[in-house]
Amino acid sequence: MAVKKIGKQTVKLQNPPSIIAYASVVGPKEGDGPLKEYFDQIEQDDYLGEKCWEKAECKMLQNAIILAMQKAKITTADVDYLLAGDLLNQIISSSFTARQLQIPYIGLYGACSTMSESLSLGALLIDGGFADYVIAATSSHFSSAERQYRFPLELGTQRPLTAQWTVTGAGATVLSSSGDGPYITYITTGRVLDLGIKDANNMGAAMAPAAVDTIKTHFSDTGFGPDDYDLIITGDLAKIGKDLTLELLKKDGIDISNIYTDCGIEIYDCERQDTHAGGSGCGCSAVVLNGYILTEIKKGTFKRVLFMATGALLSTTSSQQGESIPGIAHAVTIEMR
Amino acid sequence: MAVKKIGKQTVKLQNPPSIIAYASVVGPKEGDGPLKEYFDQIEQDDYLGEKCWEKAECKMLQNAIILAMQKAKITTADVDYLLAGDLLNQIISSSFTARQLQIPYIGLYGACSTMSESLSLGALLIDGGFADYVIAATSSHFSSAERQYRFPLELGTQRPLTAQWTVTGAGATVLSSSGDGPYITYITTGRVLDLGIKDANNMGAAMAPAAVDTIKTHFSDTGFGPDDYDLIITGDLAKIGKDLTLELLKKDGIDISNIYTDCGIEIYDCERQDTHAGGSGCGCSAVVLNGYILTEIKKGTFKRVLFMATGALLSTTSSQQGESIPGIAHAVTIEMR
Repeated sequence: MAVKKIGKQTVKLQNPPSIIAYASVVGPKEGDGPLKEYFDQIEQDDYLGEKCWEKAECKMLQNAIILAMQKAKITTADVDYLLAGDLLNQIISSSFTARQLQIPYIGLYGACSTMSESLSLGALLIDGGFADYVIAATSSHFSSAERQYRFPLELGTQRPLTAQWTVTGAGATVLSSSGDGPYITYITTGRVLDLGIKDANNMGAAMAPAAVDTIKTHFSDTGFGPDDYDLIITGDLAKIGKDLTLELLKKDGIDISNIYTDCGIEIYDCERQDTHAGGSGCGCSAVVLNGYILTEIKKGTFKRVLFMATGALLSTTSSQQGESIPGIAHAVTIEMR
Repeated sequence: MAVKKIGKQTVKLQNPPSIIAYASVVGPKEGDGPLKEYFDQIEQDDYLGEKCWEKAECKMLQNAIILAMQKAKITTADVDYLLAGDLLNQIISSSFTARQLQIPYIGLYGACSTMSESLSLGALLIDGGFADYVIAATSSHFSSAERQYRFPLELGTQRPLTAQWTVTGAGATVLSSSGDGPYITYITTGRVLDLGIKDANNMGAAMAPAAVDTIKTHFSDTGFGPDDYDLIITGDLAKIGKDLTLELLKKDGIDISNIYTDCGIEIYDCERQDTHAGGSGCGCSAVVLNGYILTEIKKGTFKRVLFMATGALLSTTSSQQGESIPGIAHAVTIEMR
């Protein structure tokens, strides 16, 4: 077996990369939520002065990356790889950002799992000796996502209570081969699971099985259990997906309820902000990680966190053709040592 | 600098992964072209018995991967990572294939550069000690691409002579930490370049600057020149992009004309098959690599090849919003030793 592989899907990093800087940029609604104090930039205009939401999303992603590089005191010339993806068709936010920054670029698509997908690959590239600095980044925008995936906003379509609210936000993490932590120590790469959910307004339920599969695999590969973590946080399962995840794990005798939450629940005050089941989108886990989680790890609140962004790998075409919604979840262990 | 990095954008692999098997599946038009003897499966029905082209594309990708695994005498349980992407929105061909195969999955988006993007990452994951077997794969389908990116086929829209024909095909490569070659020895990861081309019917011109940039960077990082290669082959620049690439390189005093061709030119007999500037799509470089190139390397025709798939990172939305077309090219050195 490959030297750094433990178990079936997990890598134990031998020279754990350090997160030396991170940044988050959010829209007005996220800036009015419970995590507002953790974000670096809160935009008051969700167009960011651009003519359309797609360009606004791209600008937000650029701003998050530039801010993270400034905090890390590095320039684009120092960065070996930019690993990024987003929800827009052909990931234009990421590709146009890469055009602007001129960093060697690896485009990813993992839907809302992109933050942990990019962190995973970035950590592997550094641990493998291929890079000194990697930037992992992603973004989403409520308005660009709604009009691409669902309905024109002008229609004012009523949303069911299972629906989630796509986060307007971008997050960027700078990984380095040296630094004082937090460190990335384990990576569990997910498989695609699909239990047959077809309702695109119930993504949490569609993604929960993948989250459960990755948590179970992570525990079995590493020998860890719930007691080894202060926090297990999924990407954007929101209320319904979170409850399902707890329930499915309990059936297998695993109880993580004391240390488990979801980025889609933390980001909004769902009652007051009328976001139904909670937040979603690549930007959801990206800004919660690059705002709340990493800050609290650095403060010492959490010693070891399992961060697990989750993605629903559907498209409008696959839904129209009667397909169900496949889900994926990648887990990344982040800790101070 | 990271231990395995040479120059700015290039990695020299210290334990070069071996390509232990490869497979290609193509549609009827490709099976009627000059490379037909190299393909494993030539489909006579471009629906592959499915109800729509998107499902046909997905099936083609699955078939190519399963065939490559059979040739490698491995099963899905042996494979550490599936690295795949395609042109369809949210890369559904790849994600639904990953759902079927249940291999840990990393979804990529690099447009038509996906074959070299996936090969690059796969080789890095093996050289880094994270995997024993990786599958790199991609696909495209003329009919699913046309209706997503351009016009409904039923319209019978006339195509300008600069237009390229999206290849119906899928290719898969099995990389291993041990084997008798061909080996992947160098990887040059591209930056995104954009010289302002806005015509989505002239992708070759839009991608040529990225190809030129990556070739120049590869030469300067490695110290290699045209004499060190028997073949330099770009992904899908086709006639116009190929001529531009040669011209731009000549301006910098680099002449690769004796050893240079493009997958988009090789795959069709453009005059007889009425494919205008030539082939394109993720599947173009995928089937030329996993048919013609690797077979001829194994035969000894080519000793060292620079394979460089090229991608146009536009979307219909970015074009409608007036954006030009960013391009990217990743280079992979493949050789017998």
